[in-house]
Amino acid sequence: MTEIHTRGRSAAERLRAMGLSLPEVRESSKYVNHRTLDASIYIAGQLPYQDGWLLGQGTVGMDVEMEAARGLARHAALNALAVAADAVGGLDRVRIVQMLVFVASTPEFGQQADVADAASELLVEVLGENGRHARTAIGVASLPLNSPVEIQMVCTAG
Amino acid sequence: MTEIHTRGRSAAERLRAMGLSLPEVRESSKYVNHRTLDASIYIAGQLPYQDGWLLGQGTVGMDVEMEAARGLARHAALNALAVAADAVGGLDRVRIVQMLVFVASTPEFGQQADVADAASELLVEVLGENGRHARTAIGVASLPLNSPVEIQMVCTAG
Amino acid sequence: MTEIHTRGRSAAERLRAMGLSLPEVRESSKYVNHRTLDASIYIAGQLPYQDGWLLGQGTVGMDVEMEAARGLARHAALNALAVAADAVGGLDRVRIVQMLVFVASTPEFGQQADVADAASELLVEVLGENGRHARTAIGVASLPLNSPVEIQMVCTAG
Repeated sequence: MTEIHTRGRSAAERLRAMGLSLPEVRESSKYVNHRTLDASIYIAGQLPYQDGWLLGQGTVGMDVEMEAARGLARHAALNALAVAADAVGGLDRVRIVQMLVFVASTPEFGQQADVADAASELLVEVLGENGRHARTAIGVASLPLNSPVEIQMVCTAG
Repeated sequence: MTEIHTRGRSAAERLRAMGLSLPEVRESSKYVNHRTLDASIYIAGQLPYQDGWLLGQGTVGMDVEMEAARGLARHAALNALAVAADAVGGLDRVRIVQMLVFVASTPEFGQQADVADAASELLVEVLGENGRHARTAIGVASLPLNSPVEIQMVCTAG
Repeated sequence: MTEIHTRGRSAAERLRAMGLSLPEVRESSKYVNHRTLDASIYIAGQLPYQDGWLLGQGTVGMDVEMEAARGLARHAALNALAVAADAVGGLDRVRIVQMLVFVASTPEFGQQADVADAASELLVEVLGENGRHARTAIGVASLPLNSPVEIQMVCTAG
């Protein structure tokens, strides 16, 4: 993370340097991707979609490996970041407050924090201090479309 | 939804036109149904109770069918709406910000969004623009009293 | 609770009278234990750690008994309280707003509210009126490190 955090670089530049870009935000007909209440921006649960495709399906600890799960967590976080950037008018103004990471898990699986760490690291790599957040990681029975990971955030304009 | 959203009708009138009414709010001795912090009103998780009875039990994808689950999601949302109306002093002043929908699910079940959609549709049918919300739907192992659905909301006075 | 709520006693004194003390807060390298947004303090999910040890592992309804689960819920709540006290500058200023209680559960288990009640009771015993909160209890497939309980809170300075 040391090299990435070069002072003066924008969040968008850091993202590019990581070989990433903000995905296009998917819309739902039933709910909105974010809702603002005073300074709080509530972001709807995001799945690891990319270009309209869900990047994985299954249960971590059974048919989804740790490294795959971590990659999916990063993608879901990236989608949440895209919604947040939309909401506040640019990635450089996004400050993350709280992240809830849901991991589809077997009853025996206990490494939800390792999966969530991948998302937490991404946020700090891209946003620096603005990416630091309170976090909760839990293992759930299953997620929409059998996604292995789902991420919900509260953020604000930094 | 077109007909229901007739301009000038109140939320209470729309609810009545749907053949529904706000249920009486159940109290717990251990916690409160809502707590306010600045403009944010946090509503405790609501189960699909009606007249003191839990309307269903079981796991969606196993012993609870989709249509039954959707009906239960609507009832849980209605209970949350009753708490919200209590909190802000009337249904017409309720604005929903965020909804978390928990669906008791088998590991193979992936249609939590379809269950949650029933609750989202209800909110918009009753409250119009004030009913639009950020949403997260997840599948959990089990819920209190083996309820198939539980709904938590953050709302505000619109 | 009557005797404990003696007027004029501080929250710290009540905690001591219960034979409890605020645990040392564990830090993570990946996220922060709390993040403040206006008056809202979001507290990261807390496990039932004590002196660096997780006090239990397993699934409630299978290999963790109710009384053990209730004790773990109290410990997780105590850890969240320690974070909150840190955040607002002392236990007497902590006001709890919302609590989310995750209980690692079998699909058949339906007593998540009984587990969560132990945490709710602790908060009111220690903080009095400031401890009253909106609550959601759910049963999840599994939790980090196979903890049977995890607790997340939103609080504020009272």
